[in-house]
Amino acid sequence: MTLGRPVPPPLGANLTPQHVRQAPVQPGAGTLVQAYGATSAGSGLVPLRIERRAAGPHDVEISIAFCGLCHSDIHAARGEWRDQRYPLVPGHEIVGRVTRTGEDVSMFVVGDLVGVGGLVDSCRTCESCNEGLEQYCENGAVATYGAVDQRHGGEVTQGGYATSITVDEKYVLRMPESLDPAEAAPLLCAGITVFSPMQYFGVEASDAVGVVGLGGLGHLAVKIAKALGAVVTVFTTSPEKVEEARRLGADRVLLSTDAAALAAARRSIDLVIDTVSAEHELGPYLRTIRRDGALIQVGLPPGGMPPVPVGMLIGRRIAYGGSMIGSIAETQELLDFCAAHDIAAEVELVTADKLNEAWDRMVAGDVKYRFVLDVESLSPGKDPDAPQDQARPDTAHTEERNA
Amino acid sequence: MTLGRPVPPPLGANLTPQHVRQAPVQPGAGTLVQAYGATSAGSGLVPLRIERRAAGPHDVEISIAFCGLCHSDIHAARGEWRDQRYPLVPGHEIVGRVTRTGEDVSMFVVGDLVGVGGLVDSCRTCESCNEGLEQYCENGAVATYGAVDQRHGGEVTQGGYATSITVDEKYVLRMPESLDPAEAAPLLCAGITVFSPMQYFGVEASDAVGVVGLGGLGHLAVKIAKALGAVVTVFTTSPEKVEEARRLGADRVLLSTDAAALAAARRSIDLVIDTVSAEHELGPYLRTIRRDGALIQVGLPPGGMPPVPVGMLIGRRIAYGGSMIGSIAETQELLDFCAAHDIAAEVELVTADKLNEAWDRMVAGDVKYRFVLDVESLSPGKDPDAPQDQARPDTAHTEERNA
Repeated sequence: MTLGRPVPPPLGANLTPQHVRQAPVQPGAGTLVQAYGATSAGSGLVPLRIERRAAGPHDVEISIAFCGLCHSDIHAARGEWRDQRYPLVPGHEIVGRVTRTGEDVSMFVVGDLVGVGGLVDSCRTCESCNEGLEQYCENGAVATYGAVDQRHGGEVTQGGYATSITVDEKYVLRMPESLDPAEAAPLLCAGITVFSPMQYFGVEASDAVGVVGLGGLGHLAVKIAKALGAVVTVFTTSPEKVEEARRLGADRVLLSTDAAALAAARRSIDLVIDTVSAEHELGPYLRTIRRDGALIQVGLPPGGMPPVPVGMLIGRRIAYGGSMIGSIAETQELLDFCAAHDIAAEVELVTADKLNEAWDRMVAGDVKYRFVLDVESLSPGKDPDAPQDQARPDTAHTEERNA
Repeated sequence: MTLGRPVPPPLGANLTPQHVRQAPVQPGAGTLVQAYGATSAGSGLVPLRIERRAAGPHDVEISIAFCGLCHSDIHAARGEWRDQRYPLVPGHEIVGRVTRTGEDVSMFVVGDLVGVGGLVDSCRTCESCNEGLEQYCENGAVATYGAVDQRHGGEVTQGGYATSITVDEKYVLRMPESLDPAEAAPLLCAGITVFSPMQYFGVEASDAVGVVGLGGLGHLAVKIAKALGAVVTVFTTSPEKVEEARRLGADRVLLSTDAAALAAARRSIDLVIDTVSAEHELGPYLRTIRRDGALIQVGLPPGGMPPVPVGMLIGRRIAYGGSMIGSIAETQELLDFCAAHDIAAEVELVTADKLNEAWDRMVAGDVKYRFVLDVESLSPGKDPDAPQDQARPDTAHTEERNA
């Protein structure tokens, strides 16, 4: 999000996790809350206590109930995309209830079911922000974790693997009460990431949409595209996912290794959403795209991608592009759309002590289709102000917590 | 143009150049005309006599005056893109006068100044043809040279390094009389190739257009973009081209190797037209593109391109795409636009005996900015029916012609 922009050294960058955990709560200052995060690229996830700022006039304080586990969390925590600031508490598919509102908050009241996605602030003055596309903020949108938040004293943001979070109301979403909150959480990143390019390219009834990869993003892409009226093709490398894809609504399922089937599918798709964040060849998918169609990549493989077959782009005027989450307004639009169409993710709830195992399974592709952290497992009372000894013990990392 | 489509073996594929040259003219059949072409990937260009079909009801017979030399001619003749049929007479920037018209021809009369670009036919029934985008014909547009022309007995098309050509009137352009015909010839491929993506992306006054490479295509891209009212940036690797670019109308010239200048140009361009057909890194140019902008590649490097920095595409929703010449209607639109704005190529005329040398200079980038073959040097009388012994002798290839 701060691509190519020099990032000032974060305040507190010299603090160790121990410093963070041991910092006393100042009167009028922030609150220490329970979290899980990485203390280095190789640390895995360990219990931490992090400080949340006191709610300012425009802030909403949210008691987190659920937080989806996104592959980005792993890339970031492991420093696979860039050098990272630690400690780092991941999580940007956050659902919870408002527990406190700043004096100038006008959109939310205590008790509202709300969400926080991939960004918690932006410059609010650049062209992209002015156009309501703050995810592309030209001064660097403030990512929900691991970003320097200049508007709040340069603190480094920390995400939703935690019992609470404080966010400016402009960056808070209203969650539909009709959806299961755990199942709705992945809409905030996985869902909006696939919805946004469909909106940008104006997908409508009878358009042909392709989805590469049937994971957290892919399974939502199928549901959303179907709800938009599209004819949906799923590409998968896994024969065992063919029936699953059909169950989710796919009209056609193509094995990426089946050259004959791919050849028969030439020029049949308008827009391919490529959700795979590991390096992979694009030729098989580009071949299926019609003239003036597009292949949009929404996953960013840490090692990059192999060369694009340029001749295919030229021969059918195809665009190969990228897209990044969505704006706050568009995310709200998606949430309302999903409520109207009863769409949510298929999730597997995970407790805090199983987070590292869940990450390993995500890397192995072993999840149908999104892990969601049950934040109650971090702090049963869901009260971020409760004494920390009320938190459930974590057997694997007792020494870390007691350090 | 026949990407991925099985191409039937061409009729006459087993004929050697000698067979072609020695074939007698049949009564009512085609006419033997003088040409220059390749007899194998390594032959270079040698004098040949090729047969042009007799004008059918819808055909226009054109006495060629000038033919631009396109880098595609070299790639094709040398078999760098794919296996090629030989003999191959290149040339698809053809300007000449109508010498004969078929009985059903309605758009042209004898004496008209006309042009032929990169295609001479298409299926006329597919979606792309029906939409007036025959360059993307889904059954394979018939390229002006080296393509199998099923509508005319499966003959292999031969291009404009020749004294005449016979083409269906639907694929013939009307050349503006106000432009110098030699200077206008390169509009038929180089010009339309850069104009078409500008039209597709709706370039209009005050948009920012970037041009990578200042060769045959690039120098026309600068002129055309300026005439559309755009603010034009030229990227070049050659410091000596900076002043040239400004003379041609560029508002800004950036050296592709000047990292500081490129950094200062971040997010300043809407559409970059990349005319370089050798392998090159895209990062320097992508960095200068605004959110929702595009980099369109119109040159196809035989060895492909290096990997695209996907993060840049995602971070600013940039499209990396390709584009191929333009439709017949769009080419006519360009010709009329150029006449209205007095735009044409800067050319160096070349005689037939210097064609091989000209190709070597093109590969070395040593031409400002487009070579154009003066077809009179093939046959001084410009009369394709004139006895061949009236043709000017060719000193370099006498033995070949007399074989």
